[in-house]
Amino acid sequence: PRRRPLDVDELYEGILAGNRTALARGITCVESEAPRHRVIARELLRRCLPHSGDSVRIGITGVPGAGKSQFLECIGKMLCDADKRVAILAVDPSSSVTGGSILGDKTRMENLCRDERAFIRPSPAGKTLGGVAAKTRESIILCEAAGYKVIFVETVGVGQSEVAVRSMVDFFLLLQLSGGGDELQGIKKGVIEMADAIVVNKSDGDNVQRTKVARGEYARVLHHLHPYTEGWEPQALCCSGLHGTGVWEIWEMVLKFCDKLKAENRFEDIRSKQNAKWFRSLLEQRVLEAFYSKQKESGLFLQLESDVTNGRIPVIEAVDQLLG
Amino acid sequence: PRRRPLDVDELYEGILAGNRTALARGITCVESEAPRHRVIARELLRRCLPHSGDSVRIGITGVPGAGKSQFLECIGKMLCDADKRVAILAVDPSSSVTGGSILGDKTRMENLCRDERAFIRPSPAGKTLGGVAAKTRESIILCEAAGYKVIFVETVGVGQSEVAVRSMVDFFLLLQLSGGGDELQGIKKGVIEMADAIVVNKSDGDNVQRTKVARGEYARVLHHLHPYTEGWEPQALCCSGLHGTGVWEIWEMVLKFCDKLKAENRFEDIRSKQNAKWFRSLLEQRVLEAFYSKQKESGLFLQLESDVTNGRIPVIEAVDQLLG
Repeated sequence: PRRRPLDVDELYEGILAGNRTALARGITCVESEAPRHRVIARELLRRCLPHSGDSVRIGITGVPGAGKSQFLECIGKMLCDADKRVAILAVDPSSSVTGGSILGDKTRMENLCRDERAFIRPSPAGKTLGGVAAKTRESIILCEAAGYKVIFVETVGVGQSEVAVRSMVDFFLLLQLSGGGDELQGIKKGVIEMADAIVVNKSDGDNVQRTKVARGEYARVLHHLHPYTEGWEPQALCCSGLHGTGVWEIWEMVLKFCDKLKAENRFEDIRSKQNAKWFRSLLEQRVLEAFYSKQKESGLFLQLESDVTNGRIPVIEAVDQLLG
Repeated sequence: PRRRPLDVDELYEGILAGNRTALARGITCVESEAPRHRVIARELLRRCLPHSGDSVRIGITGVPGAGKSQFLECIGKMLCDADKRVAILAVDPSSSVTGGSILGDKTRMENLCRDERAFIRPSPAGKTLGGVAAKTRESIILCEAAGYKVIFVETVGVGQSEVAVRSMVDFFLLLQLSGGGDELQGIKKGVIEMADAIVVNKSDGDNVQRTKVARGEYARVLHHLHPYTEGWEPQALCCSGLHGTGVWEIWEMVLKFCDKLKAENRFEDIRSKQNAKWFRSLLEQRVLEAFYSKQKESGLFLQLESDVTNGRIPVIEAVDQLLG
């Protein structure tokens, strides 16, 4: 049977009623590049915006193998069982939110997928990280309008995706492994510095002692770095995504974070700043894209860039030549 | 007597001959906003560029009170005595390179100022950090053409000045105090992560033991962070800018850094990347400046920005409205 065309009234009402199918279709519309979908998406976002915002947005990152899927499944199930509605979105195409189909592991998040109170959405396909990130931001709005109170945005250390995710969440959690005690395990430069918490996962079996040592090391490191979120001292914790040990404590930490920031009137401020920054960054991205696409046709740009890189002409002269 | 007008041939020949007065006048010209000076500056830079590059560019930062002046005077004198010609430039108006006149401390760098082999230049006056940084980059070229083989660029933790300095130097050194052992002493977020070395200064008198402990702490922290410069493990050292203890070792570390990077063919690469990045950043700065100055006249921009910040309209819609 042919799928019914998207109707903005129907989508909007379905989303507000918390209907998962309507939400999924709304997000599909937001992700689409087709002009007719863009028109619907804009109207839908405009209507949903006043119903959004009442949630905690949690970013989660960690290298492949850190156990992000298992952790998300575990904390997601706990939250659902505590009557919280949980949405899990992803920013990378390589992310485990895809349900592990890439890795052929069919059991990933299977339990959580079946739970009516959870909504899981893989990363949108997109050419640029900026585009993917913009779509994820808009999906967050729809999820919130649909009544999801806990939004996880998952990413994995690919390019600048952590920076993009950090800029759209309230709380940023880095999932680590104990490794050799003081290794970085492939996590990208600057990610530790963005974390509100580092959680050493797989604290189970023979590994408990090692994760405790790693936790101590991370606590020391965090103590020497500037907190990303003003007014919050980043924490280091252990957990087992497999057995659930320490997972509820992570949720309690997030609640404490929200309470503290709300008590100090910082929470709304964080959200406003996120919006303002997002506006500027999207705007500047578009302006520069337009500039470069014009420049690259001319040939002069590439010539000057090469001259400058090789030290043949001074930078300021090249810029003057280009901009007149 | 009236000062003779600037003549590009005379300036160029004077600079190549290593004349300090010609160099100072050349930099004044580079720093000037007057159109006739801009013309001379461009020509001068163009001619000096092929004679530049043969130096090590060292960035130095630290909070006020970390002893930057004393350290620079000490290392500068040692290098001059070892027959190296040393230039010291500054990026902030508040920097100690001004000779301490702001603080009324007339003895700052007085010895070094008198040394014919040293060239000391305060920060250019400028409205924007971008503008000041651009001028410092150009001054580096003139200093190198004048035969200065060691260029220090000093900054103090004001706004984004560390990022600007980091982007124009080969080696970046953070001067710290022992403080309470694990305090951050007001150094800005992200600065530790940019350092090729942290030097705990004032390791003299009663303070020696404390600085050694601090050095150990910093070594641990650096070990957990990603090196800024690929192929170089950041070092933590102690020194006394007052007595000179450990200062020559810092120079030896810089030499080791250069040797290692040159042996691996990374040094030229760093310089090329600096040029390419500088070109892009200056270009984008100018393009965005032009865009915003046009927008701000219209009123629509400010209205949309406020609507977006307060969550009244979706970001993407605001951007579409603005760019059509």
